[in-house]
Amino acid sequence: MSRIAYVNGRYVRHAEAGVHIEDRGYQFADGVYEVCGIRDGRFMDEELHLARLRRSLDESRIGLPMPLASLRHVLREVVRRNRILNGLVYFQVTRGVAPRDHPFPPAGVKPALVVTAKRINEARVRNAVEKGVAIVTMPDQRWARRDIKSIALLPNILAKQAAREAGAYEAWLLDADGYVTEGSSTNAWIVDQQGRLVTRPAGREILSGVTRHVLLETARQEGVEVVERPFTADEARAAREAFISASSAIIIPVVRIDDAAIGNGAPGSLTMRLRDAYLTYGKLT
Amino acid sequence: MSRIAYVNGRYVRHAEAGVHIEDRGYQFADGVYEVCGIRDGRFMDEELHLARLRRSLDESRIGLPMPLASLRHVLREVVRRNRILNGLVYFQVTRGVAPRDHPFPPAGVKPALVVTAKRINEARVRNAVEKGVAIVTMPDQRWARRDIKSIALLPNILAKQAAREAGAYEAWLLDADGYVTEGSSTNAWIVDQQGRLVTRPAGREILSGVTRHVLLETARQEGVEVVERPFTADEARAAREAFISASSAIIIPVVRIDDAAIGNGAPGSLTMRLRDAYLTYGKLT
Repeated sequence: MSRIAYVNGRYVRHAEAGVHIEDRGYQFADGVYEVCGIRDGRFMDEELHLARLRRSLDESRIGLPMPLASLRHVLREVVRRNRILNGLVYFQVTRGVAPRDHPFPPAGVKPALVVTAKRINEARVRNAVEKGVAIVTMPDQRWARRDIKSIALLPNILAKQAAREAGAYEAWLLDADGYVTEGSSTNAWIVDQQGRLVTRPAGREILSGVTRHVLLETARQEGVEVVERPFTADEARAAREAFISASSAIIIPVVRIDDAAIGNGAPGSLTMRLRDAYLTYGKLT
Repeated sequence: MSRIAYVNGRYVRHAEAGVHIEDRGYQFADGVYEVCGIRDGRFMDEELHLARLRRSLDESRIGLPMPLASLRHVLREVVRRNRILNGLVYFQVTRGVAPRDHPFPPAGVKPALVVTAKRINEARVRNAVEKGVAIVTMPDQRWARRDIKSIALLPNILAKQAAREAGAYEAWLLDADGYVTEGSSTNAWIVDQQGRLVTRPAGREILSGVTRHVLLETARQEGVEVVERPFTADEARAAREAFISASSAIIIPVVRIDDAAIGNGAPGSLTMRLRDAYLTYGKLT
C-alpha cells in the first residue's frame, strides 16, 4: 500500500490523503489516469504513459495540472518516498473542484492531481503467469470512447467482478457483432492456428495500451507475424494460445476461455517467449 | 452553495468536506446518486427518489450506507442546517474506501455517503421557463445501463458542454438508429401534431426520471393522451411542442431543436399547462 501520496501540491500520509467532495472526479468521473510499472527502480515506458495521459486530457479537454517535467519529478518523488523498487505508480488528473454543475467550470479552476505508488504482489503475478488464467466473455457495456483512459470505470468494475464470481481472472468484452474488444482492465490477444499474433486494432473501441504498443514492436522484432484485426469469441476459444496484457503484469497467459481450454491448457510457448522478450528488450527509460 | 455537508457520519463545513483519495467513487466512479427538489421547505417526490436510489444501489450491488429512516433524517438535517426553503438536496453513495483494485472490496468495507444541499437559482430557472431553451442533437456515447443513476458521468459532461458551446441549453442524445434517448441530465418529451404527449419508454436506454414518472401521471390525470415510444430527431424537429424534465426545474420548454424552431418558437401551451399541473397537484411528501 502507498504510505505517502501526492495530492494537489503536498506529499501527505496516505491515511490522511483526501480530496474535496466537489472535486469533479468524485461527482462526475470527470478525470483520467495512468498506471506506470516500476521495475528495479526504473519507470517502464514512462514517455508512452505521459503521452497517453496528454492524449486523454486533450480528448477530455482537461488541462495538464503542471508541466510534464514537474510531473515526472512528482512521480519519482512519490516512488522514492514509498521506497518502491518493483511496483506501480498511479496518477490521476481531474477537472478540479467546483460547485456541482454539468458544464465545464470557469477557466481558472485548476485540474487536480493525485499520485500514489505501491509494491506489486509479485507472488500473485508469478502464480498467474506460471499457471495461466481463465477468461469469461460477456457483452461490452462501456461508453463509446474507450480510447480515453477515464476514471468512469463502473462498467469495468462490474465486468471484472462478474468474471471473478464466475471463477475467472478477467472478462473479455464482446461488441454487438460478437467480436472481442478487450478485457475489463487489460488488452486481449490470441495466437491463431497459423501461429500469427492477433489483436484488435487501436480505435475508439479499445484503450490503446502502452504495453500493447510495446508488445507489437517486440513481436515484430522477434519475427512474429502480427495481424491487427478484430477476432470473435469463437475464434478465441479455438485459438492455439491466448493472453492478456497490462502495465501491471506485462503478459498473463490465458489457458481457458469460457468452457474451452486453450491449446493444451498450459501457458503458450509464443506467449512466454514474448513475455521474456518484453522484459529483456522492453523499453526502460 | 452548500455551507454544511454530511460526510460519512459527520456534519462538516463545506469548505473542509473531503473524502479519501481511495474512495472508490474517486478512482472508479463506483457509486450512484440522487438529486431531490425542495419546495417551500418540503421534499418533492422523496419516496420515489429513495426507491430509485435503492434500485441503483441494488443494480450496482452497493449496500445502503444506513437504514432509509436514518437517511431521511440526514437529508432533512442537511437541508435544515443549510436553511434551504427552495433548492436541491444531493446525496451520493459509493462502494467505500479500499486499496485500488477493480473487483469489489471485501465484505466489511462500508459504503460512503455524502449529502449536500443548495439553493436553486430561481431567476435562472424562471428565465429558462419563460423564454424556453434550445436543444442540439448528438450521438449518445454513454454506457449500456443508463437506468442506473451512476456517477460515471463523463459522457454526460462532454455532451452538456458541447451543447453549451453550440449555444444550446441541453443535448438530446441519439441512439444508433437516430432515436432520441434523453438529454444529458434531463428526460426528453415532445407533443406531436395530434396533441399527443410522446416520451421514450423506461428501459436500460434511459434513466427512469422521477419527474418523468410523476409527469406521466399528471398528464393522464389532465386527460392528455400519452404515448410512450421512441421518437426520432426528425420527429422532434417537426413537433408541435417539446420540453425537458428534471427534478431541478420540473419542466423547461424547448423552443428550438438544432436549426428548427418548435411550434411558433415560444413555450408550448400544453407544456406550460403540465408544468402548472405538476406544481399544483405534484406529489409533495
